[in-house]
Parts: sequence; structure tokens; C-alpha cells
Amino acid sequence: MNEPLQPVRAWRLRADDRASHEDRVIVETPVALLYNGDSFAVMMATPDSLEDFALGFALGEGIVRDASEFRLVDVVRHAQGIALHAAIPQARFDALAERRRGMEGRSGCGLCGVERLQAAMRPVPRVTSRIRVDTAAIHAALDALAAQQPLNALSGGVHAAGFAHAGGLLVREDVGRHNALDKLVGAMSRQAIAPGAGFAVITSRASYEMVHKAATAGIGVMVAISAPTDLAIRTADAAGVTLAAFARGDSLNVYAHPERIAATP
Amino acid sequence: MNEPLQPVRAWRLRADDRASHEDRVIVETPVALLYNGDSFAVMMATPDSLEDFALGFALGEGIVRDASEFRLVDVVRHAQGIALHAAIPQARFDALAERRRGMEGRSGCGLCGVERLQAAMRPVPRVTSRIRVDTAAIHAALDALAAQQPLNALSGGVHAAGFAHAGGLLVREDVGRHNALDKLVGAMSRQAIAPGAGFAVITSRASYEMVHKAATAGIGVMVAISAPTDLAIRTADAAGVTLAAFARGDSLNVYAHPERIAATP
Repeated sequence: MNEPLQPVRAWRLRADDRASHEDRVIVETPVALLYNGDSFAVMMATPDSLEDFALGFALGEGIVRDASEFRLVDVVRHAQGIALHAAIPQARFDALAERRRGMEGRSGCGLCGVERLQAAMRPVPRVTSRIRVDTAAIHAALDALAAQQPLNALSGGVHAAGFAHAGGLLVREDVGRHNALDKLVGAMSRQAIAPGAGFAVITSRASYEMVHKAATAGIGVMVAISAPTDLAIRTADAAGVTLAAFARGDSLNVYAHPERIAATP
Repeated sequence: MNEPLQPVRAWRLRADDRASHEDRVIVETPVALLYNGDSFAVMMATPDSLEDFALGFALGEGIVRDASEFRLVDVVRHAQGIALHAAIPQARFDALAERRRGMEGRSGCGLCGVERLQAAMRPVPRVTSRIRVDTAAIHAALDALAAQQPLNALSGGVHAAGFAHAGGLLVREDVGRHNALDKLVGAMSRQAIAPGAGFAVITSRASYEMVHKAATAGIGVMVAISAPTDLAIRTADAAGVTLAAFARGDSLNVYAHPERIAATP
């Protein structure tokens, strides 16, 4: 359960060929996130960079404000999956308990649909990053990202999130795109890389949750290879996040706050 | 909020061109699923084929056994999103309440991580479909799928799930791959298309949840364009689901129960 890749048997069916071969596929395992002994969520994730994941999830979800409020106390491997036990300050724990109550809704209440809908759209902080990026740097980061995905290279179907900064490109991979971003945010925090001093590149689409996590982590520019959603664009607008998507070859589209991006002559 | 696509302004940055144009992007909106007035979950979904989605989610999640147990009583559009109100039998409602209690874990209990991990991996039913499919039919269905994605054609980044059967290929789209499959399962049920008498094709990867939903709905063959995960393969193995992935051009890999697929000479 420690390994991010797993050998499996695969049959490649062609006209007169039914031979099976060994293939490697990405591992997906339930990972429970516990704070002060209380289980908050279970994510289906790739069991790799778990320390980054634990911290990054807490930062991206706004459960803690910075790494000083977070301590990973135990990683327990059960037959059913992995439990990540973290300690957070009591005030943060109380806020989380309050949030969970809002998410659970109330039985028999005609308004609970509205309450749940509201809870799904948490307030997003305003990002203050003053970074300026040119399109050549973005395309260079995308090329670097393509070359730094060892799990995807071996198994396919793995998402990656990268952060381009003065020190190079930091990359994390996961079977889930949100998890890859969580791992990246955790790794940045653990390596003391300032979120406002670079930009994120992701192999997936830009959905509401990806933009929300980036903004909560203080990232001011997010570049997605695939499409954005309308809610991601509105969230980026409101949070002051520059959102670019369809970043391929030598082109990209900017959907929110284009002022941070300069076209390279 | 009714429209699955939304016009937005986009800047396509090239060397000396900063002109903006109108682009269409896919809509992602919170959709709350309520049973007998009680809110169960909020999904981020594309507001299209909502009747199919409501029923398919309930079937794929095992909340009801068939369409006779389900009645969509109201679709309420709030400023915050859409609430789908359904009525289900009291016994099903009680079972769901029990399941929710299991998912919430218990505060201060050292075992709650394990309980939550266990709740994330629900038992999967065994599929009894006796369908036999040949690779030519699969590749024909994939070609048809590519041609039947109007939302994706206009906006990009939209997932599709299709079901190939004697009557043709039924397709549903959504910003989320799980939602696309839920909509497909709901549409099949509403059109009385037997899940055992055809096969599913999906534009995405095959994860645990996709295979679990297919098995719960009684679909015996799932073909994914992208990669499978290890847990998806093990789930397909256990559920008796034939799982093929990397289905592209004239090739595909089969990862579980290859006996249902014949290579076309």
C-alpha cells in the first residue's frame, strides 16, 4: 500500500492475439484525514508524498492558516486504507466542527438544501500576489511539467500540479487532480516557497475547487492545460486570481485578471 | 442557471495580440440531492439532464434499487444552486440515514479513521450480465461517442458517458465524469434500456467510483478511453465487471474479466 504504482495483468486484444502482459497502473487508496483524533474526510488518493498531502489539504481547505498550526502526528496504514492523523490548534478544530455541522444539513428542514448549497461555496480569500509572468515562462513551465511526471510516464492517467518559481519547477502527482494540487501546496509550504512569487500549472481542467484551493493557498496565477468552468472563472475574478486555460503549444487563453500576464514579443 | 454553457470573455495572448473575444465555457453549479426533504449531498454538476441525474445518482449510489422506488418531486433553482428533491420509500430513507451516520465518524474515537475508510469502500454487487462484445463494436461505439458530445464540442473539457445497445448509443455529458455516468444510468432507466444488454464507454479514466457505480447499476462492461486505477481493477474483478481501458485507435487493454470481449478477426 506504500507504492504509488501496482503491477497488474492486462490483455491487449487484437485480431489474432489474446496474450496478456504485465502492466503498471496507478494506485488509488482511501486516505482518511483526521484532526485531533476526529475524522474530517476520506479522499481517494495515490499513496505518495503523504506528508505534503496532509499539510496541503489542510492549507487548501482553509483548515489551518499556515504550517505552524499543523503537525502530522501519525501515518497509520490499515487494511482499508491510510489514516493521516494531524494535530491543529483547538480554535481551528472548533471552526472545523462548526463547518461540518453546516455541511451536514438538518433533517426535515425545508431550507437545508439551501444551507448545503451555501456550504458548498465557501468564501474565497483575495490573493495579493504581485507577480508578473510572461507567456514564454508559462510555456517553458508547461514543457518542464511534461518532463517531470514519472508516475504518469509509467502508468498514464495521473494528474500533476506544478509551481514555477525562481528555484525551478516543483511538481507533485496524484490520481486525483485536487490531490495533486494539495500535495503541491503542502510541498511548497514545507520547502518555504512563497505562493505569491510564482505560478501554478496543472495538467487538468480548471474547476471551481481547483481555483478555490489555489486562492486559499495564496497562489495568484493558475494555468490549466484543459478547459475552465464558468464557476472557476467567476471564483478567480472574485479572488483576484489570474486564470489561464487551454495552454497548449504556443497559445493560451486568459479568463480572469489578464493584467499579470505579458505576451512575450 | 438553466443553460449548460455560458459566454465569457477570453484573452488569447500572442506576441503582439491582446484582443479579447467571446468564448463559451461549461457551466458548473452546486446541485443538492435531497431525499424526503433531507439533504444527502451536493455535487458540482452541469445543469443539464437533471431528471436523469437525480435518478441515476440514486441508482448508482445504491440509494434506491430501481426507478419504481424513486420520484423526483421538485427541481428548485436557488441563487446558490439547484436543489433536486426526490421521494424514496421510508425503508430506503432509513438505510441512507444509517449510511450517513457511518460516514460521519465519531468524535474522539480512536477507530473512527478505520470506520471512515471502511465507509469509503462500500460493498459492490456482483453483475450478472451475459453480454458478449467484440472489439469492432467497441471501436464503433468510441467513434460514435466522439461525434455525440455537443457540449464538449462547443466548450472543451466536458466528460461524456455512453451506453451502446441494440438501439444505438445513448450519451450524456457533464463537467464531472461521475455525473456524466449518473446521468447516463438515469437516462437508461427512464428509457427502459437494460444495463446488462450493452456496454458503457467513458471519455475519462476508470477509477474505483466509476466501476462501483457501473456495477451498482448492473452494467457488465465498461470501456474507458484513459487509464484504470489498481482499485478500479480490483473492484471490477470482484464485481464481475469487464473493464477495458486505454481504448484508442484500433487497440484497447482489458484489465478484468476479458471473457466478455472477443477480438474481431
